[in-house]
Amino acid sequence: MQADIITIGDEILIGQIVDTNSAFIASEFNKTGIRIRQILSVSDKEESIRVALKESLEHVQLVIITGGLGPTNDDITKNTLAKFFNSKLIRNKEVEKDVENFFAHRGNSIIELNRSQADVPDNCHVINNLNGTAPGMLFQTSEGKVVVSLPGVPFEMIAMIQNGVIPWIKEHFEIPVILNKTFLTTGIAESVLAERLISFEKNLPSNFSLAYLPSPAIVKLRLGVQGDKLEFIRNEFESYSKQLENNLGENLFGYNDDTLESVVGVLLKNNNFTLSTAESCTGGNIANLITSVSGASEYFKGSIVAYSNEVKMNILGVNKDDLDKFGAVSEQVVTQMADRVKKLLNTDFAIATSGVAGPTGGSPEKPVGTVWIAIASPTNTSAIKINVGNHRGRNITRSSLAALNLLRLSILKIVEKTVEKV
Amino acid sequence: MQADIITIGDEILIGQIVDTNSAFIASEFNKTGIRIRQILSVSDKEESIRVALKESLEHVQLVIITGGLGPTNDDITKNTLAKFFNSKLIRNKEVEKDVENFFAHRGNSIIELNRSQADVPDNCHVINNLNGTAPGMLFQTSEGKVVVSLPGVPFEMIAMIQNGVIPWIKEHFEIPVILNKTFLTTGIAESVLAERLISFEKNLPSNFSLAYLPSPAIVKLRLGVQGDKLEFIRNEFESYSKQLENNLGENLFGYNDDTLESVVGVLLKNNNFTLSTAESCTGGNIANLITSVSGASEYFKGSIVAYSNEVKMNILGVNKDDLDKFGAVSEQVVTQMADRVKKLLNTDFAIATSGVAGPTGGSPEKPVGTVWIAIASPTNTSAIKINVGNHRGRNITRSSLAALNLLRLSILKIVEKTVEKV
Repeated sequence: MQADIITIGDEILIGQIVDTNSAFIASEFNKTGIRIRQILSVSDKEESIRVALKESLEHVQLVIITGGLGPTNDDITKNTLAKFFNSKLIRNKEVEKDVENFFAHRGNSIIELNRSQADVPDNCHVINNLNGTAPGMLFQTSEGKVVVSLPGVPFEMIAMIQNGVIPWIKEHFEIPVILNKTFLTTGIAESVLAERLISFEKNLPSNFSLAYLPSPAIVKLRLGVQGDKLEFIRNEFESYSKQLENNLGENLFGYNDDTLESVVGVLLKNNNFTLSTAESCTGGNIANLITSVSGASEYFKGSIVAYSNEVKMNILGVNKDDLDKFGAVSEQVVTQMADRVKKLLNTDFAIATSGVAGPTGGSPEKPVGTVWIAIASPTNTSAIKINVGNHRGRNITRSSLAALNLLRLSILKIVEKTVEKV
Repeated sequence: MQADIITIGDEILIGQIVDTNSAFIASEFNKTGIRIRQILSVSDKEESIRVALKESLEHVQLVIITGGLGPTNDDITKNTLAKFFNSKLIRNKEVEKDVENFFAHRGNSIIELNRSQADVPDNCHVINNLNGTAPGMLFQTSEGKVVVSLPGVPFEMIAMIQNGVIPWIKEHFEIPVILNKTFLTTGIAESVLAERLISFEKNLPSNFSLAYLPSPAIVKLRLGVQGDKLEFIRNEFESYSKQLENNLGENLFGYNDDTLESVVGVLLKNNNFTLSTAESCTGGNIANLITSVSGASEYFKGSIVAYSNEVKMNILGVNKDDLDKFGAVSEQVVTQMADRVKKLLNTDFAIATSGVAGPTGGSPEKPVGTVWIAIASPTNTSAIKINVGNHRGRNITRSSLAALNLLRLSILKIVEKTVEKV
């Protein structure tokens, strides 16, 4: 089954808001086995809506429209659809009750403009909106195609897609089975990955797909398969997933919605390890990433953000002579930072960073983008130098993610050794 | 001038990524005086791209296409456009040089797949990509219409729109004069702001517009005016800008691309003040925001991220009895954190935070979202309690921005006092 999404609203076309509704609907439909042909954003004008809907109905079975259902004059979706489907607006008693309850619950008084939200086309199936006042409307054309109109407010729309639209579609249509899994890699460039996967991709059956999604320091690979019955595709999907995993090796750090910080968090927690960081060029970003994960207090004790050399010496106790001789951006200093913060904060692991984030501060020997990262583990401390580029914000992100990945590999090494000993 | 945006990529149609590129382009074009007719997302298929482009060219003067320019097999935009415009791909020596430099700078070796990024249609104008390997391509049709293809990676696309596309369009087309200024406010809800501005908005002439752009802790107000000639609208624009400023008072913290962290940075730097932070619930995010600004090392010395009580006591020296008696999320503890980090790191100002970021860890007395913030200045230390809600990520952002705003107001108070004394 193929579907189009049409989002209505001038606020999208002037860039005032980012259309997050379409991504949500697309993702939910994709999991259900409904493929999105296209997503279109048009203005709050009757003609734009009419043309877009007509064009979509020529190509797909299902059209989802969001937006333009508010009570004010600039919201014209409902009247436009009523005209499109030759229907009259009638007051729906059940919806009116819902609207009344909605206002009563908030202790607000209701005005006629609010009540008019209960006027719906006489030939549509109403989809209840438990979080707002605009009901959803589902129309069926004479050719059996389906048009659904939902409010643009994200949390209202989300509940209506999940509890109203998808159950209705599953009840009325046969849809194919789709399986998807996203493999998250780091420490490898997209182009190198692509070379490594040439023969894997060549051998993929035609109902499979593999997509590359690059972002700073991370490349996501999405493997997908479509079929008629789950039992026909499940084994084959697992077999190709396994092959892909083998190709990815230690560059694979997680799946689907995992992040480096969540994966590292799980590793630390499951092995009862604690962590601290000593950050210079990353300026607290590693601590920030780690503590963005709920429950981080179970394994993260804290960080010394040593932005000035004064703090590196006075709080962390980095040797002044080494700072003078090798500079703050050096193996000697970053190693001491990791060792000292590990000891000071009494943790099993520590991360330290020192580098030239840019855009200024570079030199011929240490150009912008030069970053030293050290990992102190219960057994040793090691440091590596990376070159991340010349954009400050991305340098901080790339350095932070590289540091988290080095920590991940370091924990894995320790855990594997322990397992071998046992 | 009217334009369409076409974003290409299956990852959008399966909802794996939210299309933020379109909102950025729409917003930049809107400021320039180019109106967006529609935004369309289609799949990585030659036929989809061809049909979409053809349809757009029937309606608008300018089409911006993003995505599908990567080096791998699933990226087909370049070949599709070359075919559409009857051109041949030729190796562009200048672009090849850029690609080589891009890899050399990172110390990575270059493979033929990367070099092929320098193959461009022989009848397009190349738009340089300083942040990646895929060049932008600008085609002109025989009717004088313009089609621009850019990479989908946001930071590459952003620079190319600002430095390549918009200057080229301004040079080649007559577009109406638009003046825009964005006023940045914090510490006030959108609805309260709207009430305060009722009479200001009523008196705005019809060629003016005022748009509200809310985000966590910050509401941006964009005042715009459109006219035929700059000299007709400039004075009036300045007069209304002044009126708006007076209405906003101390909630106004900056303009256009300012951020709270950049504004605070300028205040610190201009007055030769230094800053440190002691962060619990914000987990390093304040340090991260401050150090995201280039040149922060001139005023920011560092941070103690005291995520565990152990670090609060052992490194910061917070009193154990107070921790036991009042808890970590208390006025007593957060005040000590600010005072201690200010002294330890020898700075003029210090920020401290302690709160319940959630989603767990709340109690009846201190529910999720309870955050204490302290500001230590050269003359005193004060703390306030705020309630930020129940979503972890947004709580950390809101708390961090509230703390930066309190610091801003505290610096302003000190600076004003000094001026009075002089």
